[in-house]
Amino acid sequence: MNEMNDTYRIESDLLGEREVPNAAYYGVHTLRAVENFQISGTTIATYPNLVIALAAIKEAAAQANAELGLLPEALRAAIAAACQEIREGRLHEQFVVDIIQGGAGTSTNMNANEVICNRALEIMGHQRGEYAYLHPNEHVNMAQSTNDVYPTALRIATFFAIGHLLDAMEVLRAAFDAKAVEFAGLLKLGRTQLQDAVPMTLGQEFSTYAVMLEEDMARLREASALIREVNLGATAIGTGITAHPDYAAKATAALSRITGVDLITAPNLVEATQDCGAFVQISGVLKRIAVKLSKTCNDLRLLSSGPRAGFGEINLPPMQAGSSIMPGKVNPVIPEVVNQIAFEVFGNDTAVTFAAEAGQLQLNAFEPVIAASLFRSFKHLTNGCATLAERCVKGITANPDRLRETIERSIALVTALNPIIGYKNATSVAAEAYASNATIREVVLARGLMTEAELEEALRPEALIQPRAYGPKPAGR
Amino acid sequence: MNEMNDTYRIESDLLGEREVPNAAYYGVHTLRAVENFQISGTTIATYPNLVIALAAIKEAAAQANAELGLLPEALRAAIAAACQEIREGRLHEQFVVDIIQGGAGTSTNMNANEVICNRALEIMGHQRGEYAYLHPNEHVNMAQSTNDVYPTALRIATFFAIGHLLDAMEVLRAAFDAKAVEFAGLLKLGRTQLQDAVPMTLGQEFSTYAVMLEEDMARLREASALIREVNLGATAIGTGITAHPDYAAKATAALSRITGVDLITAPNLVEATQDCGAFVQISGVLKRIAVKLSKTCNDLRLLSSGPRAGFGEINLPPMQAGSSIMPGKVNPVIPEVVNQIAFEVFGNDTAVTFAAEAGQLQLNAFEPVIAASLFRSFKHLTNGCATLAERCVKGITANPDRLRETIERSIALVTALNPIIGYKNATSVAAEAYASNATIREVVLARGLMTEAELEEALRPEALIQPRAYGPKPAGR
Amino acid sequence: MNEMNDTYRIESDLLGEREVPNAAYYGVHTLRAVENFQISGTTIATYPNLVIALAAIKEAAAQANAELGLLPEALRAAIAAACQEIREGRLHEQFVVDIIQGGAGTSTNMNANEVICNRALEIMGHQRGEYAYLHPNEHVNMAQSTNDVYPTALRIATFFAIGHLLDAMEVLRAAFDAKAVEFAGLLKLGRTQLQDAVPMTLGQEFSTYAVMLEEDMARLREASALIREVNLGATAIGTGITAHPDYAAKATAALSRITGVDLITAPNLVEATQDCGAFVQISGVLKRIAVKLSKTCNDLRLLSSGPRAGFGEINLPPMQAGSSIMPGKVNPVIPEVVNQIAFEVFGNDTAVTFAAEAGQLQLNAFEPVIAASLFRSFKHLTNGCATLAERCVKGITANPDRLRETIERSIALVTALNPIIGYKNATSVAAEAYASNATIREVVLARGLMTEAELEEALRPEALIQPRAYGPKPAGR
Amino acid sequence: MNEMNDTYRIESDLLGEREVPNAAYYGVHTLRAVENFQISGTTIATYPNLVIALAAIKEAAAQANAELGLLPEALRAAIAAACQEIREGRLHEQFVVDIIQGGAGTSTNMNANEVICNRALEIMGHQRGEYAYLHPNEHVNMAQSTNDVYPTALRIATFFAIGHLLDAMEVLRAAFDAKAVEFAGLLKLGRTQLQDAVPMTLGQEFSTYAVMLEEDMARLREASALIREVNLGATAIGTGITAHPDYAAKATAALSRITGVDLITAPNLVEATQDCGAFVQISGVLKRIAVKLSKTCNDLRLLSSGPRAGFGEINLPPMQAGSSIMPGKVNPVIPEVVNQIAFEVFGNDTAVTFAAEAGQLQLNAFEPVIAASLFRSFKHLTNGCATLAERCVKGITANPDRLRETIERSIALVTALNPIIGYKNATSVAAEAYASNATIREVVLARGLMTEAELEEALRPEALIQPRAYGPKPAGR
Repeated sequence: MNEMNDTYRIESDLLGEREVPNAAYYGVHTLRAVENFQISGTTIATYPNLVIALAAIKEAAAQANAELGLLPEALRAAIAAACQEIREGRLHEQFVVDIIQGGAGTSTNMNANEVICNRALEIMGHQRGEYAYLHPNEHVNMAQSTNDVYPTALRIATFFAIGHLLDAMEVLRAAFDAKAVEFAGLLKLGRTQLQDAVPMTLGQEFSTYAVMLEEDMARLREASALIREVNLGATAIGTGITAHPDYAAKATAALSRITGVDLITAPNLVEATQDCGAFVQISGVLKRIAVKLSKTCNDLRLLSSGPRAGFGEINLPPMQAGSSIMPGKVNPVIPEVVNQIAFEVFGNDTAVTFAAEAGQLQLNAFEPVIAASLFRSFKHLTNGCATLAERCVKGITANPDRLRETIERSIALVTALNPIIGYKNATSVAAEAYASNATIREVVLARGLMTEAELEEALRPEALIQPRAYGPKPAGR
Repeated sequence: MNEMNDTYRIESDLLGEREVPNAAYYGVHTLRAVENFQISGTTIATYPNLVIALAAIKEAAAQANAELGLLPEALRAAIAAACQEIREGRLHEQFVVDIIQGGAGTSTNMNANEVICNRALEIMGHQRGEYAYLHPNEHVNMAQSTNDVYPTALRIATFFAIGHLLDAMEVLRAAFDAKAVEFAGLLKLGRTQLQDAVPMTLGQEFSTYAVMLEEDMARLREASALIREVNLGATAIGTGITAHPDYAAKATAALSRITGVDLITAPNLVEATQDCGAFVQISGVLKRIAVKLSKTCNDLRLLSSGPRAGFGEINLPPMQAGSSIMPGKVNPVIPEVVNQIAFEVFGNDTAVTFAAEAGQLQLNAFEPVIAASLFRSFKHLTNGCATLAERCVKGITANPDRLRETIERSIALVTALNPIIGYKNATSVAAEAYASNATIREVVLARGLMTEAELEEALRPEALIQPRAYGPKPAGR
Repeated sequence: MNEMNDTYRIESDLLGEREVPNAAYYGVHTLRAVENFQISGTTIATYPNLVIALAAIKEAAAQANAELGLLPEALRAAIAAACQEIREGRLHEQFVVDIIQGGAGTSTNMNANEVICNRALEIMGHQRGEYAYLHPNEHVNMAQSTNDVYPTALRIATFFAIGHLLDAMEVLRAAFDAKAVEFAGLLKLGRTQLQDAVPMTLGQEFSTYAVMLEEDMARLREASALIREVNLGATAIGTGITAHPDYAAKATAALSRITGVDLITAPNLVEATQDCGAFVQISGVLKRIAVKLSKTCNDLRLLSSGPRAGFGEINLPPMQAGSSIMPGKVNPVIPEVVNQIAFEVFGNDTAVTFAAEAGQLQLNAFEPVIAASLFRSFKHLTNGCATLAERCVKGITANPDRLRETIERSIALVTALNPIIGYKNATSVAAEAYASNATIREVVLARGLMTEAELEEALRPEALIQPRAYGPKPAGR
Repeated sequence: MNEMNDTYRIESDLLGEREVPNAAYYGVHTLRAVENFQISGTTIATYPNLVIALAAIKEAAAQANAELGLLPEALRAAIAAACQEIREGRLHEQFVVDIIQGGAGTSTNMNANEVICNRALEIMGHQRGEYAYLHPNEHVNMAQSTNDVYPTALRIATFFAIGHLLDAMEVLRAAFDAKAVEFAGLLKLGRTQLQDAVPMTLGQEFSTYAVMLEEDMARLREASALIREVNLGATAIGTGITAHPDYAAKATAALSRITGVDLITAPNLVEATQDCGAFVQISGVLKRIAVKLSKTCNDLRLLSSGPRAGFGEINLPPMQAGSSIMPGKVNPVIPEVVNQIAFEVFGNDTAVTFAAEAGQLQLNAFEPVIAASLFRSFKHLTNGCATLAERCVKGITANPDRLRETIERSIALVTALNPIIGYKNATSVAAEAYASNATIREVVLARGLMTEAELEEALRPEALIQPRAYGPKPAGR
């Protein structure tokens, strides 16, 4: 049994004895890790989903070991009670190791083992540190290794994070969709390569943002299926050493019940223990989402450029004074912050790629930075989608006068006449309109290429924004 | 009609007239593009799948327009005949524009229009350049825009490229699988964090490489489904301007028949025309594959390190003299080249991400560099997998003596005794074995922790590489 | 004047009135920003160097404006007093806006303006919020814009951060250098491509790590020179609008005095205001440092792999128990955490690249994420270097027996005989030694290629690790 | 001696005998490498600077060895003659190995050794393959290793590539500078965050592009200094094994003479042999250049957006028809291709980072992909700068009417009145002008805040684009 007094207790590990603050639920292994990894200042408690996932795993493992007759019921019950407290949000402040840590997550796992053990000891009526009654490694970590616990925890936490992100994306999608409906009747000029192109509606333009999000949400849901495959029961390298043959199935079933996530055991545990492919793919999907969000925000900033010397087609709601020097200036600060989130996500994907590639033989020791990068991406994207919806998209208004003006003076309208007067004639009409600052309508009439009625029909707004049938046109007209 | 003489003909565009070499099937637009884009020296002909895809699209469009009564049958037939020649591999040398080009692929599309037009003119009995009979834009490009033709071509070419890559991956997977069977009986020490860990077989180790590839192949197949959604019929910005209402359905159906790829029309063509999400995702999957391949090659290089001062567990077949200065040195040149392919793929993914994010409003003008990057990744990965299989994996041999030696002297064997003697005892045994250069067996017996028979049973090879049942162990033993 | 009561005061901006907590030194602009940017949860106070730099700039600007007769001395003195408090570390908790923010840093600048203004008002005997006496924009921000203040602050903060990083790198460099001296006499086998190569000393090996750091430090010092060029006085876009013609020179001179950094005014302020090149380059140098650190840590992990089935040439000091399941296992956790820092730095560089490229026209709106990325890289690299030195390198020991053994049995020793017996003979000797498990020495003697004395001389340890003179060798021997 | 007949000769290496085509100057090692590395299809001959650098090194080494009495003069002379032919551009087609290769460049080095050897044999009056008279390894490669030859060749080739890029950048810089002068008198509205900001001239805007390039050129010149440090004489791992003590100095001096590059020997050759830091840094500088070029092209595309619904401030010269469907459309194809080059450079930098980080112990085996990535970046950037200058910038024209209009109607003009009427008043004026669609001038006069004469003076064009002196303004006005 460990010595202790009012302010500290003595614990020991393979490096020797150490004083642990008596108030701490964590123990000597956590203490060493805190001292070793003074890197980012961001503790694992920053990501509650991760802490909750760890507690769920420990509870499930205890359940499985008890069912197998390897863990006495009293110990199981105490472990489970402690885990439930943590899953309800208590004791998170005891998860103090830096998210960026060496050792493939061992310190995170030991932090969980020690906090759960000491809380369970209290529940059993013992003192913290009295590991003779319940031991962090032998009981809380029974039949487990960091190498199956940690990746399993990352997967569950990722599953939860996907859910939160999907919720925020849906809010944003609905906001764009509402604007698509609101702006359905506003004809405007489409642009390709920033050059005036052919007509469309502002509603069509906004509907693309909704559809893009919808597709990304579908991809994210697909990716979440990959993440449900866990290696719990693999123990150290996937061979299941120290675990009972029935342990993996029982522990995973218990974990599914506890978390509500439909988990499955990976078919090849040796492979699953070393493989970070699912994280690389999730990161790739987050990057895809970020690419679209950034493109969308670029568009919003372009369309609202001005107010007088830009595109000026839409107005973003003013959220704050835009400038410390230019009075009255309002800037697109919300899209700008989402752009920056995207840039971070791209960076996080680079970090994930390096870390995944660096795995060696039976383990990837660099999963902590994968976790830190992914969780940051999830958090910022989730916040970014919600912010963009609430503080920008919902308040966007259109400038109908400006939209109408661009379409009327557009040279690219001539495209609609292509099937009637031919590409070559149309090119010549466009060139003259451009040079003489005239409209297409004026030039076509002046040249007698079409009658006014034909023109009127050809340039009807509703005809411009969808396919239509023309009669055949002879070669060379 | 265009003027022409023995060595050149005169063609014109909106910039004026130009001499085009009479031997050329391409025309003035291609000529301008060649002059404008003197960048990489790599022409689009380098990627035959792209050229074939373009020809298939032009043939399908002609078919659809003819069915709609918009294109005379004689013109359709000539266009189709020209396209079939190209699909069979002829005239590829006429696709001369640089793969890296401005203009969202317009030059690639015009190169196809012009070559097909001039070849079709010949087939019809006319001279190249006699566009009065058949016009590159009005007929070959009828109801099309670069903005639907080019992305559709990229998708079809990508679909083909996925097929080739899957074939090469299967060869590699099978090679690893054969080695897994061959090495199934060889017990060895697994390693985590490059430190000695617990036992496994060399077969288990090699099976992971096969399983990883199998999973990546599944992901690649999933991604190929995304790529089958095309925007043909979108024309300039997705509104279908200049196209008949039935054109998109007819053209896509024809294209499916011609290519054998089961294509579908994207539900929102405005969105589909500007969206590069599918390419970002494909690139992400290629990156995932490259991550695993690179990790696998790192492992092969580690396991074969030596011959005398390294791990020395396996031998890679010698493929060439390894050194210009060190006689007899043989280096792992094949895994090394695959590592480098992976690094390129990571770089290509960065380029794709930048290009996709840079799309603006109704179009992404940067699809050419997306294409160049993706096609390079596909080509090098395909060559890399085949090379790794044929020139390395198939010839790998094991060093059974070395494998046996590592397991016998391993300290980490003590892990198997964890459930019997407890983590704390086991830690102490490990420490003594390390310090005294003894084996675990010797220390356990010396301390009387287990009998020789118990030890023998606990350390049976087959027992070490899979889970097993133990009786319950009381707390605190 | 603003209304106020016990718990809040009323402030207003172009969006209307808002209650600001009376205890807050920040004002309405900061409040809006906090509400708008709920992204990362990391406030600008996390980076004290940035807060200190902002206070220094505000003090310098007030000084310059006072010298020019534009700011009354009483106001200047109050501003300066408030700034000095902040520079001494007080009031940092009032810098509450998220480091990831839209608006090109406007919210950061306004946060500084408001905190300084309200503290200065107190010093002058007024209440917080009584902006009639001193105004955040008109006085604290006089002749300034976010667009010159924010990048100038980033540069000064970066300059300080470089200093801290150089200190940590020097500690690490010295630690490697000490080991290079300690290990100078230990002959070992060098490796290329993980294959046994030619002899060197362990001291030479460790000296390379010291030299790499030394070179990186030189590059970092060069980069710090670029960072000293500031655009203070540029105001909104570089034209200096609202600033006095002598302001830029006076303010920059004052800022140099206050910060102790020898700053210079950029020659073209319009260019300097939009240009993020220096940040891209600094990030590139950090990436270079991270590449080397990561490579060095990879080497340390390789050389210490084992203890029995790996290279086993050196021992890293044990810092914590390595495994929750494998007793006695000690893992290279410190190098592993530094690898992960490097991966993050690579990711941060990607984010910086995207953000820098995204600048438009007269401003880069995305400098906040550049700042967040760079500052994180600096902090983690600084902590990583210190941690690696103190918790790993200083405690490294060598395994002389293992080192000696590798050299004696090395086949690559034959390289040293190249100039004497020729590449072709040497290749044959190597092949025989490899096949027969013999040493080079044995094969050369058996073949009678050299006498024992000649061999002894040729393979003298000190002769193997440096160039030496041979007589000419006839062609074809 | 090797057997041979009319069509092939027999050569042998450690893998056995092989037929080599008699016409080939390369030999068996090259043949194996060509078979092993069927990856990219891009041979090292694609980069003539690399081939020339290799020949220069071989000539210099022969010179040094001859001076040291180790290589007979006849052999030296023949080697030198062969090398000179290659340096003049002959025999490049014999450099047939894939640029992407395993083996740290060994195959490239052996390709050079063999071609030079066989050409020198001819010069000496022997047959190709008669290596008894002159041997690729023993004579052409004397005192060399791939590990010093290859990185030295990369550095020299990089040095040449820097020179070409600087030339192209200077052409582009001068083109921007000429436009800055041409547009010096055109007042326009500056923009920050795409929102209307304060006045500047179009000349100022274009001058920033020239200045950016100028600064990047300075950085590139600095980086070229780093590249002049070579490790020739390091041989296998930096210890100089097989080389004479005076060899490094003599060979490097000879190489400086031959190449005209002022090379120096790295102070620590063990470090220099494994260190890729200089390549990482060069790649970082290329990335910096690409960031700026891409930003500049983004600006050009924005400023020329329209012609009628965009910014419309400048016109890019039309280089080709912009659309296969929209007649008369002209697109910014040249800036777009430069954007894409930048995206590739960013990708190449990622590949370089991965490859540099992957170096292990005494060597980086992945230098070939570093070379391939860097050389591609150099080539494309060089072509891109020249193309942008000649095909875009030189033909840019301004739209003075549009420029004038934006400034007159600008709300942000009120910034210039800040020092006179105060930030708060100015904000209110701006808000009214925006809401009522009035000009700042109108609102200020209507409110009686300034007289017409005061306004006239305050808004003088030349006063708006530079700092100016105001009298002091009392607090709270």
